[in-house]
Amino acid sequence: MTTATAQANPNIAFIKYWGNHDQALRLPANGSISMNLDGLFTRTTVTFDSSKWDSLKINEYDVQGKGLERVSRILDLVRDMAKIENRARVVSENNFPAGAGIASSAAAFAALALAASTAAGLNLTEPELSRLARRGSGSASRSIPGGFVEWQAGSDEDSHAFSIAPPDHWDLVDCVAIVSAAHKKTGSTEGHAIADTSPLQSARLGDAPRRLEICRQAILNRDFDSFAHIIEQDSDIMHAVMMTSNPPLMYWQPATVDIFHAVREWRESGLSAAYTVDAGANVHVLCKRAQARDVEKRLRGLPGVNDVLVAGVGGPARIL
Amino acid sequence: MTTATAQANPNIAFIKYWGNHDQALRLPANGSISMNLDGLFTRTTVTFDSSKWDSLKINEYDVQGKGLERVSRILDLVRDMAKIENRARVVSENNFPAGAGIASSAAAFAALALAASTAAGLNLTEPELSRLARRGSGSASRSIPGGFVEWQAGSDEDSHAFSIAPPDHWDLVDCVAIVSAAHKKTGSTEGHAIADTSPLQSARLGDAPRRLEICRQAILNRDFDSFAHIIEQDSDIMHAVMMTSNPPLMYWQPATVDIFHAVREWRESGLSAAYTVDAGANVHVLCKRAQARDVEKRLRGLPGVNDVLVAGVGGPARIL
Repeated sequence: MTTATAQANPNIAFIKYWGNHDQALRLPANGSISMNLDGLFTRTTVTFDSSKWDSLKINEYDVQGKGLERVSRILDLVRDMAKIENRARVVSENNFPAGAGIASSAAAFAALALAASTAAGLNLTEPELSRLARRGSGSASRSIPGGFVEWQAGSDEDSHAFSIAPPDHWDLVDCVAIVSAAHKKTGSTEGHAIADTSPLQSARLGDAPRRLEICRQAILNRDFDSFAHIIEQDSDIMHAVMMTSNPPLMYWQPATVDIFHAVREWRESGLSAAYTVDAGANVHVLCKRAQARDVEKRLRGLPGVNDVLVAGVGGPARIL
Repeated sequence: MTTATAQANPNIAFIKYWGNHDQALRLPANGSISMNLDGLFTRTTVTFDSSKWDSLKINEYDVQGKGLERVSRILDLVRDMAKIENRARVVSENNFPAGAGIASSAAAFAALALAASTAAGLNLTEPELSRLARRGSGSASRSIPGGFVEWQAGSDEDSHAFSIAPPDHWDLVDCVAIVSAAHKKTGSTEGHAIADTSPLQSARLGDAPRRLEICRQAILNRDFDSFAHIIEQDSDIMHAVMMTSNPPLMYWQPATVDIFHAVREWRESGLSAAYTVDAGANVHVLCKRAQARDVEKRLRGLPGVNDVLVAGVGGPARIL
């Protein structure tokens, strides 16, 4: 019996991942840039033993069916590499609630890739771990390295993430505004698969190198104005593709748009704040640490904002 | 002294006009399709006499400066054609309020083109009138012919509008939901001029022939489902360009997005309703006449909807 426990942060993308050029290998149609979220994590223990089947427990609940199958596919890749045949028990916990506006799959598959490969006796490099995590959930590749991270498009061999700056490079804070969802959420499961049905997706992809370069330089130079404009534009471009795909995916709610206007007004009045939205209605408002309390308070004062989560820049996935 | 009075309806575009390939001649970057709005009109009287200067009165107010200059440029085109040099008195009235979510410039320049050319003794054809109106405001070209109208892109000579179906072809109704503007409106004056700064505009233009064809066929076949999907997609595509231009133009308000979700829910439950939004926050909800009362009532029940204007399909610009 061999066991290992790993912990990984979720991440928030500044240049978004939307659409694959290889769905099965989860090779993205464009590169992306993100920051890990400190203080929020998934902690996962993998134990290879003499069990007859793989099993999965998330936050005390046994998971079967598609959720378990997706985990087993990562375990199969690990078993192939380690040349073992043991089944595994996987026990996972998040310290952040579901529906908190934080995608849990990135942290979950990053922690799984690290725990499973370690328990199997493998000693994978960071790029190898990132590629393995990617097979479970594309954005999980970005939760392997620490700090500010870029995930490059490419082939199975070279599509992995790497740090472009460590956590202490820039003291940014993500204030996640959780908003009311008055209307039912549009399903996102098939989102990546239908990205190409939007007449705007090819323009989004063609323009991606420009956005990546601006965002990378803004982070390296700690240039908040440039950072604000490019992350808002990139988020709006991704949602434009979503809204115009077939079927259309409209994730924004009234409060989402209210926050967009508010954040821009705050910025015009001197506050360093900028918005980005993942495949949901909640709004991530990035700001400088010194202004985070102010931003959090202002967000809580907006109608339609139910709660605000606050996270700094997180480190890499690690073994506990 | 020669005088004429003309009346023209505003119109609502189903396939939108956004961006020019010639700013001075108002030659659009793409073709567009619209419907005239019955019951709403601008009524304009033009009198050429021995005045020393052109003068303009709108809704009882004297207008000077840029508003008058824009009118004088159309009068100059008419004077050139008619080989006259008289100045003109222009008196114009709208029967719909400013800020009602209806662009007044389309009706205004269509009525001006018809009244001025008639007063000058010209007997212009419909395409000639449409081209003349276009020089004042692009969308005014579409308020010259009646019913369902297409305005083709092209050169100064052939960029005019024409009817694709008469008003009685399809009994559609436009319910215009006037929404609260909690935040200041983004300026639209420079909108057309900055359309090309969006990384999505070239994709929008490249895809325009597809959208025009689907919309044209949906109208000719009275196919509401197809009509609903294409007008919503076209509206979202135009706003995607606006949002991602430099500077970004975000016209939507929280209530705008609330209406999007509501209209789609109503449609799923069997109501024939579809949304489209011009350069503002108000939402035009198109529906069949038989369901217009129901749609109006539902819109009035939404939070953030202050008023609802209702208009059927209007006829061509005409001399009174």
